[in-house]
Amino acid sequence: MRKNGSKAVVLLSGGMDSCVAAAIAAERYQLAMVHVGYGQRTEGRERRAFDDVCDFYGVNLRLATRLDHFRQIGGSALLDRSIPVPETGPGPEIPVTYVPFRNAHFLAVAVSWAEVIGATAVVIGAVAEDSSGYPDCRPEYYRAFAEVVRQGTRPGSGIEIHTPVIGMSKEEIVRKGMELGAPLAKTWSCYQYEDEACGVCDSCVLRLRAFARAGLVDPIPYRAGVAL
Amino acid sequence: MRKNGSKAVVLLSGGMDSCVAAAIAAERYQLAMVHVGYGQRTEGRERRAFDDVCDFYGVNLRLATRLDHFRQIGGSALLDRSIPVPETGPGPEIPVTYVPFRNAHFLAVAVSWAEVIGATAVVIGAVAEDSSGYPDCRPEYYRAFAEVVRQGTRPGSGIEIHTPVIGMSKEEIVRKGMELGAPLAKTWSCYQYEDEACGVCDSCVLRLRAFARAGLVDPIPYRAGVAL
Repeated sequence: MRKNGSKAVVLLSGGMDSCVAAAIAAERYQLAMVHVGYGQRTEGRERRAFDDVCDFYGVNLRLATRLDHFRQIGGSALLDRSIPVPETGPGPEIPVTYVPFRNAHFLAVAVSWAEVIGATAVVIGAVAEDSSGYPDCRPEYYRAFAEVVRQGTRPGSGIEIHTPVIGMSKEEIVRKGMELGAPLAKTWSCYQYEDEACGVCDSCVLRLRAFARAGLVDPIPYRAGVAL
Repeated sequence: MRKNGSKAVVLLSGGMDSCVAAAIAAERYQLAMVHVGYGQRTEGRERRAFDDVCDFYGVNLRLATRLDHFRQIGGSALLDRSIPVPETGPGPEIPVTYVPFRNAHFLAVAVSWAEVIGATAVVIGAVAEDSSGYPDCRPEYYRAFAEVVRQGTRPGSGIEIHTPVIGMSKEEIVRKGMELGAPLAKTWSCYQYEDEACGVCDSCVLRLRAFARAGLVDPIPYRAGVAL
């Protein structure tokens, strides 16, 4: 699978999109995987998914870290249990699950580590389809960040930002993951629960819809009554 | 002093440059101060300087946070006690005290907090004179980061990045601080020690030279034998 010896630092949340981004990166790069916990509700479950996906790809270069300041800063239903996670389906506005400027923190961790280990790529599973809700999921954002990386790392570090699934629909992400044998059964997307996915938060709704459109059944466990 | 009610989030390291940046920001903004510890050798002393400068300006909006992942990532004499801090004076190359892509982490914390509290400016005391050593101290870097902020925050957040001392020499920074009554005696710059400054690390050398050129004596304590 590995076409050359270059390393890529992959931001692996534990969810489906970053798992498929990792599967794509695995075709070309030696993988180094980062997980960033930030006090989100399902942090423990996502961390387990991270370890499972790393094991699947035989990744030894793992950095699992935790950012405590998001909890101090607040402002999101993913962090603040007094703000309920919506169960009415995604709308056109920025949802209460938005964590302000979140992906910049994740990219900063990945780029610093890439510079130290000599990786030439940082891979993030952002999806533009999500960008009505999250401004830091758009291609323009990643083009701007790539310029920050060019300006702010050692001359010659040559670190590129890759967003291999940014233009895909969720259905295409599922199909691509299946095609590449990505371990989607080991991933976790639910915003609310860690044992069985709720099936009704925005993240579950988008995931279930993607599997249904791809004509597949999502292999992870859902609460009783959720239509798969 | 406050010309309007806008808030600015100021990244205050505890050093001289960010203290003067805060003094400049205080002319126009209500201050919100952030300190980011990251496992650097003199973290405790810098944190005390942060509190002292916040007290001086009567700042209630304080966010003191800690990033543990820099220690995990390593790669800098400021983090790794097995790499000695150089005592031979600044040279033309990137020094071993360089922390890869450090300022992006600091800016990300400040921007996330600015978005939550409704601040319209983020202020950082970067100095371009340092940029031979640290690529993330150059104006181009901050222009690029400003674009990331425009793209990656809520539409209408209007958060600007200000670098009020970026074009100043260290001597000018000392003079400006004196002119504005900035509490330079409460700041700390030494990379090595927390009780008395070593006087020989790059940061001390630049600070001492700045005070000498401004015709002033640095009010902080130095080890015996350091020429003030």
